[in-house]
Amino acid sequence: MALERYATAALTGAGVEAADAAIAAEALVAADLRGIPAHGIARLDGLLEELRHGRIVARPNASVIRETPTSLLVDAGNGLGQPVARRTMEQVVAKAAGAGAAFGAVRHSNDFGIAGFYAMLALEHDAIGIASTNSPRLAVPTFGREILLGANPLAFAIPAGEEAPFVLDFATADAQGVPLGGPGAERGGHKGYGLGLLVDILCGVCAGGPFGADLPPLSDGAQPGTISHFFAAFTVDGFRDVAGFKADMDTELRTFKDAQRSAGADRIYVAGEREFERAREYRKHGIPVPLKVWAAVSEQGSRS
Amino acid sequence: MALERYATAALTGAGVEAADAAIAAEALVAADLRGIPAHGIARLDGLLEELRHGRIVARPNASVIRETPTSLLVDAGNGLGQPVARRTMEQVVAKAAGAGAAFGAVRHSNDFGIAGFYAMLALEHDAIGIASTNSPRLAVPTFGREILLGANPLAFAIPAGEEAPFVLDFATADAQGVPLGGPGAERGGHKGYGLGLLVDILCGVCAGGPFGADLPPLSDGAQPGTISHFFAAFTVDGFRDVAGFKADMDTELRTFKDAQRSAGADRIYVAGEREFERAREYRKHGIPVPLKVWAAVSEQGSRS
Repeated sequence: MALERYATAALTGAGVEAADAAIAAEALVAADLRGIPAHGIARLDGLLEELRHGRIVARPNASVIRETPTSLLVDAGNGLGQPVARRTMEQVVAKAAGAGAAFGAVRHSNDFGIAGFYAMLALEHDAIGIASTNSPRLAVPTFGREILLGANPLAFAIPAGEEAPFVLDFATADAQGVPLGGPGAERGGHKGYGLGLLVDILCGVCAGGPFGADLPPLSDGAQPGTISHFFAAFTVDGFRDVAGFKADMDTELRTFKDAQRSAGADRIYVAGEREFERAREYRKHGIPVPLKVWAAVSEQGSRS
Repeated sequence: MALERYATAALTGAGVEAADAAIAAEALVAADLRGIPAHGIARLDGLLEELRHGRIVARPNASVIRETPTSLLVDAGNGLGQPVARRTMEQVVAKAAGAGAAFGAVRHSNDFGIAGFYAMLALEHDAIGIASTNSPRLAVPTFGREILLGANPLAFAIPAGEEAPFVLDFATADAQGVPLGGPGAERGGHKGYGLGLLVDILCGVCAGGPFGADLPPLSDGAQPGTISHFFAAFTVDGFRDVAGFKADMDTELRTFKDAQRSAGADRIYVAGEREFERAREYRKHGIPVPLKVWAAVSEQGSRS
C-alpha cells in the first residue's frame, strides 16, 4: 500500500532498519485503517523528529532479559515501540501455540500505537490474544487530584468463524483524564481507575520499567524509553475443539448484532466490528490522511 | 469460625459432602468478611432450598473434560459453584506453578459467589490470578433493549510485599442492568458492554456452556447448571525475581494511597484495600449477619 511504503521509506530515511520500519509503518496504517487516526500516520512526523534527535534509538539493542517456555521479558533499548511489541507478541503467540499459554512484557520502549493490533496477532493461530501498554500520565485516581495514570489501553482479541473476530480495545481513561465510569465512584469510576492501575502493574511492574509517578506526565511530552507493554495468548484448543468454539462465537456475536435495538439506534455493534468494516471500506476507497501526508505520498509515488 | 461451622453443618445436612460444604461455607463467609453480604451467608437459605429440591445436585459427578499441562475444562455436574470453582482454580494455580501459566474453565455450574475469592488463590504461589463467571441476564448491550448480559464479574489478584495484595474484583454491569460506563456510548458504556461480552465469551464459549440468550434472565430466578466460570494464573517469576516485583508493587500501591486527595475526600483506595481492612475488622469484632442467621448460629453454638 502506498501509505505504508511512504512511511517505511521515511523511517528508513531516519536510520531505522528496513524490517523495523516496515513493521512500524504497518502498525501506523493499521490504526488509520481501523479509524483511529490519532495513533496513525499522523504520528509519523513526531516519530521522525524523535529519531533524528536520537531521543528514540533508530537501531536499538533490544535484548531478552528473561525467557521460559511460557514467558518472555524484553528490554526494547529505547527503540520504536511497534517493532519490539510486534516481535514480542509473535513470540508469545508462538510459545502459546506450543505450550498452550504464554505471557510477555517489554520495558524501555515507546508508544506502540493501538493495542488491538498486537492482540490480533493471536487470531491466525486460533488463540485468544491480550495486549496492553502503560502510557504518559493524564488521569487522576478516584478521590485523588494528582495525575498518576495514563490512558492505559487494554485489548482482547478472540477468533470467530464466519463473523469478524471479537476485538475489544479500549482506553481505561479518556483524553480528559477521567477513568472509565466517571470521575467519582457513583457510576463505577473506581472500576476504571482500578483497570488503569491494573494495566500499569501488568506493564510497568511486570516488565521492571517505570510505573506510577515515575512515568512522565503527558503535559511534559513523551519521555523516550519510559513505556512498558504486556502481552498474553492462550489457545482455544486447550478448552475445546476449534471448530466448535468458532461456531459458538458466531452464534454469540450474531445474538448481539441481531438483538432488538433501543429507540433511535441504527445498529448494535460487537467489539471490533465497526473497525473491521472501516478497514474494509478504507482498503477499497482509500484512507483519509492529512493533506500534507497525501502530498508527500503522491510525490513519492510520482518518483517511483 | 462459628459462622463457617454453621454453614458447613447446614450444607452437609442438605446432603453435600463435608469437604464441599466446608469450601462453600468458606466462600460464603469470605464474601461477608470482605463486605459483600449479597454474596455471603444471606445466600445460604436459597442454596439449601435448591439442594433439597434437587435443583442443584448435592453430590455431583464433576468431571474433567479436557486437560493439558496449561489448561483444564471441568463439567461441574450441576453441583454447587464454590467447590468446583475452588478446586479448578487450585489446579490452574498448580499448573501455573509448574508451567508458568495456565487457564481453566468450568461449565454446568452454579453461582460461585465473589470472583476475587478464586483469583486470590494464586497469591500464595506468587502468581497473578484471574477469575470470572457469567451469570443470569440483567443488562442490555449499548444501543440495545434486550436483556442479554449478566453482572459478569471479573477479578484480578496481584501479590505485593508489605502492602495488601491488589485485588480488583468488579461487576461489568450494575444491578440496574447498566454496563460499566453508562447506558449510552458517550461515557464509555460500550466499553462496559464489551467487557460484559468478553466475560460471557471467556466463560460460556470457552467452557462450552450456555452463553448469550441461552443464559436465563435473572427475572426467571436461577436456572441450575447454566453458569460457566473462567480462571487463569501466571507466575511473577516468569518476568522478574519475586522479591523485586513485590517491592515495586509496594511502591506502586503506596504511590496511589499516599497521593494528594481531591477536596472532601478522606482517602484514596487501591483495589482490594477496603475489603482487606473490613475483613480484619470483622475477624476481630464479628461479622454483621441477618438476625435469623445469628439466632441459628447461637443455637448451634450452645448445642456444641
